[in-house]
Amino acid sequence: MERFVADAGVLRLSVTQEPGGARMVDAGASARGSIEAGRRIAEICLGGLGTVSISPSGPIPSWPYSVVVHATDPVLACLGSQYAGWSLADEDGDSGFFALGSGPGRAVAVVEDLYKELGYRDTAEKTALVLEAAGGPPASVVAKVAEACSLRPEDLTFIFAPTQSLAGATQVVARVLEVALHKAHTVGFDLHRIVDGIGSAPLSPQHPDFIKAMGRTNDAIIYGGRVQLYVDADDAEAKQLAEQLPSTTSSDHGAPFAEIFSRVNGDFYKIDGALFSPAEAIVTSIRTGATFRGGKLMPELVEASFS
Amino acid sequence: MERFVADAGVLRLSVTQEPGGARMVDAGASARGSIEAGRRIAEICLGGLGTVSISPSGPIPSWPYSVVVHATDPVLACLGSQYAGWSLADEDGDSGFFALGSGPGRAVAVVEDLYKELGYRDTAEKTALVLEAAGGPPASVVAKVAEACSLRPEDLTFIFAPTQSLAGATQVVARVLEVALHKAHTVGFDLHRIVDGIGSAPLSPQHPDFIKAMGRTNDAIIYGGRVQLYVDADDAEAKQLAEQLPSTTSSDHGAPFAEIFSRVNGDFYKIDGALFSPAEAIVTSIRTGATFRGGKLMPELVEASFS
Amino acid sequence: MERFVADAGVLRLSVTQEPGGARMVDAGASARGSIEAGRRIAEICLGGLGTVSISPSGPIPSWPYSVVVHATDPVLACLGSQYAGWSLADEDGDSGFFALGSGPGRAVAVVEDLYKELGYRDTAEKTALVLEAAGGPPASVVAKVAEACSLRPEDLTFIFAPTQSLAGATQVVARVLEVALHKAHTVGFDLHRIVDGIGSAPLSPQHPDFIKAMGRTNDAIIYGGRVQLYVDADDAEAKQLAEQLPSTTSSDHGAPFAEIFSRVNGDFYKIDGALFSPAEAIVTSIRTGATFRGGKLMPELVEASFS
Repeated sequence: MERFVADAGVLRLSVTQEPGGARMVDAGASARGSIEAGRRIAEICLGGLGTVSISPSGPIPSWPYSVVVHATDPVLACLGSQYAGWSLADEDGDSGFFALGSGPGRAVAVVEDLYKELGYRDTAEKTALVLEAAGGPPASVVAKVAEACSLRPEDLTFIFAPTQSLAGATQVVARVLEVALHKAHTVGFDLHRIVDGIGSAPLSPQHPDFIKAMGRTNDAIIYGGRVQLYVDADDAEAKQLAEQLPSTTSSDHGAPFAEIFSRVNGDFYKIDGALFSPAEAIVTSIRTGATFRGGKLMPELVEASFS
Repeated sequence: MERFVADAGVLRLSVTQEPGGARMVDAGASARGSIEAGRRIAEICLGGLGTVSISPSGPIPSWPYSVVVHATDPVLACLGSQYAGWSLADEDGDSGFFALGSGPGRAVAVVEDLYKELGYRDTAEKTALVLEAAGGPPASVVAKVAEACSLRPEDLTFIFAPTQSLAGATQVVARVLEVALHKAHTVGFDLHRIVDGIGSAPLSPQHPDFIKAMGRTNDAIIYGGRVQLYVDADDAEAKQLAEQLPSTTSSDHGAPFAEIFSRVNGDFYKIDGALFSPAEAIVTSIRTGATFRGGKLMPELVEASFS
Repeated sequence: MERFVADAGVLRLSVTQEPGGARMVDAGASARGSIEAGRRIAEICLGGLGTVSISPSGPIPSWPYSVVVHATDPVLACLGSQYAGWSLADEDGDSGFFALGSGPGRAVAVVEDLYKELGYRDTAEKTALVLEAAGGPPASVVAKVAEACSLRPEDLTFIFAPTQSLAGATQVVARVLEVALHKAHTVGFDLHRIVDGIGSAPLSPQHPDFIKAMGRTNDAIIYGGRVQLYVDADDAEAKQLAEQLPSTTSSDHGAPFAEIFSRVNGDFYKIDGALFSPAEAIVTSIRTGATFRGGKLMPELVEASFS
């Protein structure tokens, strides 16, 4: 985290901090940012529990570069930290600010119900939150976060980058493993039984339009992403997870995300939640050694979305 | 090494040390461990002379993740350190303990004949050995190792993980380059002429049964592994090495390893030693610039073994 | 840089420094060097602004290992530092020494016209230059460099490796992104609009003959390399760049580089400069979200060159 800020020049970040306020890191709004900044934001999001890399290969022929995520303890790294689960609405102020907080600060605040299930909380003297947003939060939201974390505002860092930016798109595609775990949770799979995992998805090209940018990052995962999970479960459970996990189970599956989004008139919550997961799941039961598969990649849809 | 132990929580290792005893790191027996722990154990095994990474691609379509090993000085890194060549039987005690020691401690003890050929020995104030085993060694074996290394027991670290574990399987597959060098040695190729090398093999899925687990890690290398070696030799020598190196030269080649193992009634030493090498070898003579190839990948056999 | 020198033993470098002279690092002339040394030299060349890695995959089936380059700020990293743009001829002495200087020392000296366009200069108390050469520069050239950098000779490090060496070939192939940027500059594209980039090319096998070695490293890029660039430009400009960037635009395209070189009787400057660029370019306009493509890989030519 401190190295990330120290490398602000190279990563093209803009770092500001007002007296008594939180440190704000612009990684793609007014600042240019970079794919490398996005890669490092993704590692910060994982709470230092995973690695994110750019690889020169993947299953989509004309988009050769992929984002790869590997987390030692994927549930803790992805759901305990990376998941954008903390709703940061400006309820006390009048800024209209809204963003979903992601990253290690969530486990310090533990305001989400999810932490009861995870049985996990972290303590830290300083912490950070990552926002897929075009700006940092106003003082009222910073105060709310500081209070929830039992920290002073000046001990908090907010890193923000919109989906349209190089860093923003990269860190969203790096959620390919996280969305798989989130869906596993949704379909009722006991998270403590997911013992390891790797995920990858094609690095999506930026788009200046928010909806198209969001469409591409989602399509990278939904139609081009895959995960391999290792579960401490018997064959029937592992098989069911492999079948339930991929985006193919969704009634909305089959169209580019931006098209689905416009079909529901931009009402995100009308989209079938089952869509938000990788195209393909490979699930190995470490209890039996058997592997089960579900879903399938749709390269032609990724090509159409990215073009 | 110290960072590996410091990250015990994240890597899910269990670290213990009794007064006057060696430090024991359980990376996959009672402790859960992880693929990342295995990757880092493999780097420790290489004595800090190589890198091991997980890549999202490889030649086996349905097993997209590969382990890649690259060592600057492959002979020193792989044979001088990574090779599991130190037989650690409990001759003085009655525990029945047996394991093959691997890692940097071997070059400190130099009890193996191999070191005469390598002309190499290391000195260290602390060192480590890695065991593909379900437990650490008893005090009698620790004492033997300490004496051979001229160190106190408390200066030794033993890292153990069974083949069935996430870390165990990963660190074994990371031996793809080492087995190639070992076979080069066996067929009489002058090791000092191997000047660089890279290897890769598909990450094999865990299996709770020891024989099946061992079968899969071996099949990953024997039928799915490949190496590129750079040799300071003339064309005839490089060509011969490329032909002699791959697993295809073995009379046992062609069946999954677990099947071969049961065919010989579990007597490891009845298996043709020539089998233990990568499926494919690419050998470049840096003396002439010519490249020679031998062996071939057998993706269908890897698929059958991993399923 | 200091870590690179500290790892001289493992990387098989030979490091010498005479009193009052520059530090000389032989990475492939008399010293053996290694692919890993070449990878790290490439990162030093990028001025610490990029990463270079070896990946076990790529588009040339029989040459599975690739060099991947990613720079946060590709123009600064590749042209401001990595580009071999500083002509170091021994004008004051009679050694006949000639080499092109590459790496961070260029931005300290800023003797090249290119820096006016880049609007960039660096200051440092110590710096380094990398030479694709079989020896270090004589004292007269060291003195010239020291003066241009306003540093003492003993504050300079010269790293040299000939094209025929493991390190030399690796660091040249790692120029796949740099040559793309250089060609973008040549065709008149405003460099400040190139905001991010990734490149990759197959790791070429060494050859003891200089012309064949140079041929292979060039063919790796010209027929096997590809880059993805992100530009802040409109569609017409991005499309034009994608079309103008690849090596396919050159009248010399289509034959192995060594053959072209002998066709012009070894007169490097008779070769069409447009040839020196990757085979394939993918250019994304971050202003419009559209992606344009140019060129194409020629795997069969790479195979012929490397064999």
